[in-house]
Amino acid sequence: MITKTVDVKELVEMIAKNARQASRGLATLPPSVKDGALLKMADALEAEAEKIKAENALDIEAGKQNGLSSALLDRLLLDDKRIKGMADGLREIAALPDPVGEITGMKKRPNGMMVGKMRVPLGVIGIIYESRPNVTADTSALCLKSGNAVILRGGSEAIHSNRVIAKILSTVAEGAGIPENAIQLVPVTDREAVKELLKLDKYIDVIIPRGGYELIRFVAEKSTIPVIKHDKGVCHVYVDKDANIKMAEDISFNSKVQRPGVCNAMETLLVHEAIAAKFLPGMIAKFNDAGVEIRGCEKTCAIVSGLVEATEADWDEEYHDLVLSVRVVEDFDEAVDHLADHGSGHTETIVTESYHTAHKFLNCVDSSAVMVNVSTRFNDGGQFGLGAEMGISTQKLHVRGPMGLNELTSLKFIVYGDGQIRE
Amino acid sequence: MITKTVDVKELVEMIAKNARQASRGLATLPPSVKDGALLKMADALEAEAEKIKAENALDIEAGKQNGLSSALLDRLLLDDKRIKGMADGLREIAALPDPVGEITGMKKRPNGMMVGKMRVPLGVIGIIYESRPNVTADTSALCLKSGNAVILRGGSEAIHSNRVIAKILSTVAEGAGIPENAIQLVPVTDREAVKELLKLDKYIDVIIPRGGYELIRFVAEKSTIPVIKHDKGVCHVYVDKDANIKMAEDISFNSKVQRPGVCNAMETLLVHEAIAAKFLPGMIAKFNDAGVEIRGCEKTCAIVSGLVEATEADWDEEYHDLVLSVRVVEDFDEAVDHLADHGSGHTETIVTESYHTAHKFLNCVDSSAVMVNVSTRFNDGGQFGLGAEMGISTQKLHVRGPMGLNELTSLKFIVYGDGQIRE
Repeated sequence: MITKTVDVKELVEMIAKNARQASRGLATLPPSVKDGALLKMADALEAEAEKIKAENALDIEAGKQNGLSSALLDRLLLDDKRIKGMADGLREIAALPDPVGEITGMKKRPNGMMVGKMRVPLGVIGIIYESRPNVTADTSALCLKSGNAVILRGGSEAIHSNRVIAKILSTVAEGAGIPENAIQLVPVTDREAVKELLKLDKYIDVIIPRGGYELIRFVAEKSTIPVIKHDKGVCHVYVDKDANIKMAEDISFNSKVQRPGVCNAMETLLVHEAIAAKFLPGMIAKFNDAGVEIRGCEKTCAIVSGLVEATEADWDEEYHDLVLSVRVVEDFDEAVDHLADHGSGHTETIVTESYHTAHKFLNCVDSSAVMVNVSTRFNDGGQFGLGAEMGISTQKLHVRGPMGLNELTSLKFIVYGDGQIRE
Repeated sequence: MITKTVDVKELVEMIAKNARQASRGLATLPPSVKDGALLKMADALEAEAEKIKAENALDIEAGKQNGLSSALLDRLLLDDKRIKGMADGLREIAALPDPVGEITGMKKRPNGMMVGKMRVPLGVIGIIYESRPNVTADTSALCLKSGNAVILRGGSEAIHSNRVIAKILSTVAEGAGIPENAIQLVPVTDREAVKELLKLDKYIDVIIPRGGYELIRFVAEKSTIPVIKHDKGVCHVYVDKDANIKMAEDISFNSKVQRPGVCNAMETLLVHEAIAAKFLPGMIAKFNDAGVEIRGCEKTCAIVSGLVEATEADWDEEYHDLVLSVRVVEDFDEAVDHLADHGSGHTETIVTESYHTAHKFLNCVDSSAVMVNVSTRFNDGGQFGLGAEMGISTQKLHVRGPMGLNELTSLKFIVYGDGQIRE
């Protein structure tokens, strides 16, 4: 046991050191070298599809033996279509503008020196993720394009798939002029490896955990490295008294039903008391038709009979499923208080025709995306025009909301002087 | 002992909860209310100068009994001039533009919805600091102006001064329309209180430690709240082979001698081999005249006799004093490697007349400020035009370099729609 611990520690430290070394070269690579490598990596994934599928079959087989649900097995599965999807993802990232080196805000100071900021890579990014093996390809590409070295630590359930994908990508990248060790996968999947990784703030600049609540708590508690969390999404639609009823129905329905298993789907519907009797019966009938289970507050249950009554716990729940809690609020302030008390700071939308109320909502609500008259489902890197995303940050530090290439960089000050000294 | 632990925990949790509550109201206050309060707070500090000095005398007395050095006692001391300085600091912050509410990057998406970002407060900021009681006033004002609630936890050596200053500021603020508990001081100074504070990620959005290496390590290790570190500054001047010798002398001298005890003072001078014999003798003579102790590498000692030889440890040392390590490097690459291996990512400057080398230095070096032909001493919020600063971040996440008002805020996405739903 002790021997094993020491080995994991040494292994992880070596990986981190190598990544740091690679990051130095990566930071100043010309865009053409990075984009050329990405295109070759995409081609290689398609060319090696048979090999990837063979390794993936081992994970699927193990998953079946371990009793994974069919939903999880489906997330794990790689077929030709999904492999092509990964490759196309890499090609799209290659086509995006390079974020590194952009200089902004250059201004002249009273003593004549020019001060501004230059966009630079973060350095070394550690990604800790679960299940879906396409994350291995996506995140490697986003990190490479933004000039960062990446350390990948996927889950045990996808280890064979992750290994073969990482191997193909890193081999092709090196052949295309990317520094050695720019893309590395931690080959062991026990928690010990993660624990050791999280101590290496000397070499790793940021940890991005992508997965369930347990994983994210574990990382936040153990890490001495700054973390960007992709935490849970308890998203809300608030139907204001001045809402257009048809629009409120469409937006509420889309936010809940279009894809209930994702983080930007609605979990709780808030309805202003003054419109509740007019809005809720039709809305809930529509939800019932779509198989959505409704859990209503007392007032909701008084308006529509036969509903399950919501408990306190429902207001904090991320169902990830065709379940919706509904609460009638007295006024705007009660809605905003509910969001502050129960929201996870992910996505909230208001439906209203009132200029004043829309303006107030945008200013008062503290979430990564605050929206007027659109579905919560739009809080997404692609939909927001970022091109590709690394997850949705639910914390306030560094970045909030969808993280694209710019969000994987940092800004350093640069100064052009001419001999200035301080008096 | 157990009783005390429980009490501290409850106390700190109550403070944090109250701060969270206060932050809701603070986020949407009009600039005029915040600026009005800041001006009244400034007046009150001056009006209560006698009371502040009396409390400060208790800290000074205790400091003497505890054998604090005269330098530390001086940092602790508050006299009329320093109290006026604190008050003027508050007035300057009141005069700065309000960062909150700024909307940037609004763009129309293909489906017609408008997506952009709004600048919002971080929420609740915890400051853990040592010694200087003026930090209590400065940071309270910066947090208030940027719409954040602040939890102050100063050191035991300044507890009487911090208490009276915080009391004056919070009382005046409340009277001027700022929500209750926007400014709170943790009244106990043992480590237990800090430990408890660092667990409250439910209520606190960011922790900013300002102090020695020990404190910063402790916070980084214990905190589940995101941390912005103000770590050590091992700053460098690199004198390139194409440097103007006179300029190199002035910049090196200013970087080391103008104020050796601060984080942006030079600690190591790197000199290109081709210019070393011409540059070093005069330079070192000048340093000797100013009482600077030189610790030279082998090559340096071969050029200037009678120097102390530097050890490996010298290259990582932040002397905070009139001590300087000097290293002759073979070429540009060796200089950049030295910075990557030994620099702390704070401030590095090159002296050169070469366009090509200056350009390369700006791109290759990874520090919060990378400069050409100016003194390292310019890496400072005031000098960079930020107006006031909260410290200098040496990490890459969220912000690097001097932190002004903008750096105490975050950006949320806002979306203006017209009924859009996702297909």
